[in-house]
Amino acid sequence: MSESISPVILCGGSGTRLWPRSRISRPKPFLPLVGDETLFGQALARTQGDSAFASAMIVTGKGHLDHVESETLEGDVSIIVEPSARNTAAAIALAALRLPADQVMLVCPSDHHISDTEAFIEAARRGAELAREGRLVAFGIRATAPETGFGYIKRGDAMGDGAYEIERFVEKPDRDRAKAFVEDGGYDWNGGIFVFTAGRYLEELAAHRPDIADAVANAVATGHEKDNRFEPDAELFAAVPSESIDYAVMEKTDRAAVVPVDMGWSDIGNWHVVRDKRPGDADGNRVIGRAELVDCRNVLIETDGPRVSAIGLEDLCIVVDGDEVLVTTVDGTQKVGKLTGAQNQDKHE
Amino acid sequence: MSESISPVILCGGSGTRLWPRSRISRPKPFLPLVGDETLFGQALARTQGDSAFASAMIVTGKGHLDHVESETLEGDVSIIVEPSARNTAAAIALAALRLPADQVMLVCPSDHHISDTEAFIEAARRGAELAREGRLVAFGIRATAPETGFGYIKRGDAMGDGAYEIERFVEKPDRDRAKAFVEDGGYDWNGGIFVFTAGRYLEELAAHRPDIADAVANAVATGHEKDNRFEPDAELFAAVPSESIDYAVMEKTDRAAVVPVDMGWSDIGNWHVVRDKRPGDADGNRVIGRAELVDCRNVLIETDGPRVSAIGLEDLCIVVDGDEVLVTTVDGTQKVGKLTGAQNQDKHE
Repeated sequence: MSESISPVILCGGSGTRLWPRSRISRPKPFLPLVGDETLFGQALARTQGDSAFASAMIVTGKGHLDHVESETLEGDVSIIVEPSARNTAAAIALAALRLPADQVMLVCPSDHHISDTEAFIEAARRGAELAREGRLVAFGIRATAPETGFGYIKRGDAMGDGAYEIERFVEKPDRDRAKAFVEDGGYDWNGGIFVFTAGRYLEELAAHRPDIADAVANAVATGHEKDNRFEPDAELFAAVPSESIDYAVMEKTDRAAVVPVDMGWSDIGNWHVVRDKRPGDADGNRVIGRAELVDCRNVLIETDGPRVSAIGLEDLCIVVDGDEVLVTTVDGTQKVGKLTGAQNQDKHE
Repeated sequence: MSESISPVILCGGSGTRLWPRSRISRPKPFLPLVGDETLFGQALARTQGDSAFASAMIVTGKGHLDHVESETLEGDVSIIVEPSARNTAAAIALAALRLPADQVMLVCPSDHHISDTEAFIEAARRGAELAREGRLVAFGIRATAPETGFGYIKRGDAMGDGAYEIERFVEKPDRDRAKAFVEDGGYDWNGGIFVFTAGRYLEELAAHRPDIADAVANAVATGHEKDNRFEPDAELFAAVPSESIDYAVMEKTDRAAVVPVDMGWSDIGNWHVVRDKRPGDADGNRVIGRAELVDCRNVLIETDGPRVSAIGLEDLCIVVDGDEVLVTTVDGTQKVGKLTGAQNQDKHE
């Protein structure tokens, strides 16, 4: 059995909450939202230089391929190109089918920020131990606030060495339930990070969603490979049912386990979070690009060119990108995704 | 004696307080800050179509000539082009020397807004009567707030028909004195609007500042005329002492009178005023250009192209012009003129 862990980085989707910097043509994983590196670059770097990890496998769509290739070297990674987006159950199955059955996979989104890499790697090692025992492991992200945008995992019996059985998965709760979960202390956020062997994942997928398992297998069987890229058959892949790994496998299997981890995780879900994650100056302001601030406090300014002159502002986010200017209170950042500009991006680009 | 009144519109200077819309190359008089017309166009229109007024004379600098000509027809106005800016005493003397001695002049800045044209014209007619009696008349703008940015005029004895002797002129006061003036009720703002005959103005200028009177006369004597434009000799005009009509003449003459007038006057001194002068929608927002507002109240947005998306804002002014974005609280609008962008315009243009 392979001793290494294969990072599988899922690089799909396109969000609207960080518009106008994030666009369909330049989605969130490829923006340097916190620090100089992009979130994708950080996800890749997180497992590099540690002997526990094999080279990364990246599952991405055609639209993101240029971005992925500009941040990777051919010899360092393998890339699976999804002809269409069929959600995470299928994306992970694609990767699993390209790996030996006993290979441990560490499945990670590419649009999250993790500040404590050591804690992440430690959890990955613990997850890999459990994976080799036949478990399907979810990272349990320490729930630090009653967030209603995440799913929660209720810890069950302790398994030793910081791992737990999973009592149940809870879909995105309302505010009151979320508060109760945080107060209870027995719940973690489901951050979409999973560890299992390729073979065990495919077995469980076949058991609970054979339609997905079969359809992906068919698309892979007639796929084509070139250099470090593999692409399943487009027509067959388009026929794969679209479902999340949570619904398709994790909530159904009796082999699930959770490894709680406190690693400074954030999904960088809106500009408010970006502001808070960036280091501020003496007045709490965060500025990227040309700007002059007078009497401003805790203001985020990011501009791709035009100068922003700001006077008397507090707790505001100003983002200038191309022909779009966003000015919002930090509370208002929750609503950015609903803006006409964010919703109608395809009409512009 | 001519029965008509000659409007003399002073069109000089370049402010910084309405940056970034106002620029050195496109100064405040030539912006449609309130309504669809520019302030200059409004100043011109104010006396048009009323039989009391002759055609207008415009005194302007070379830099503004294109703007002036784009808003006027050759047959309708005469233009005096100042080779350099020598302040209002000289500018008005230029106009006076080009008019018959008994012609009544109505001197007006071109960067103010007046909402009640009837009140303006009525005051001009009353001023003209006094001018024909040898008076130098200042409009006394009703002081509605303790403004520290204007000079004040203390009314003296009543002269009948709404006019008063002038007890004294007061330079821009501090806040406490301004408050006292408003409470006193006997003070008006000096809005820079004057009525007198050309001959009387030149006599008083010669009496109190013969250096200015002589220097302007010399520059005019060797000036040149083409079509509807007159330009004094540049070298001689550059030698004219730079002084305001207030210091040079109005504060010194014993023929001064004031006609108080309540005509919805504003110098449109900053973006706060622009916001208040524009009609708001149901939420008090004022928008010019492409914008989407969510949960905003009493917000001014003006953009020359980029879309502005605003969430959760209140009492803010957002101005997008070329490569400049201004975001300021209404209180902060006082400080716009001090911004690097406003101060260093010549380095950009």
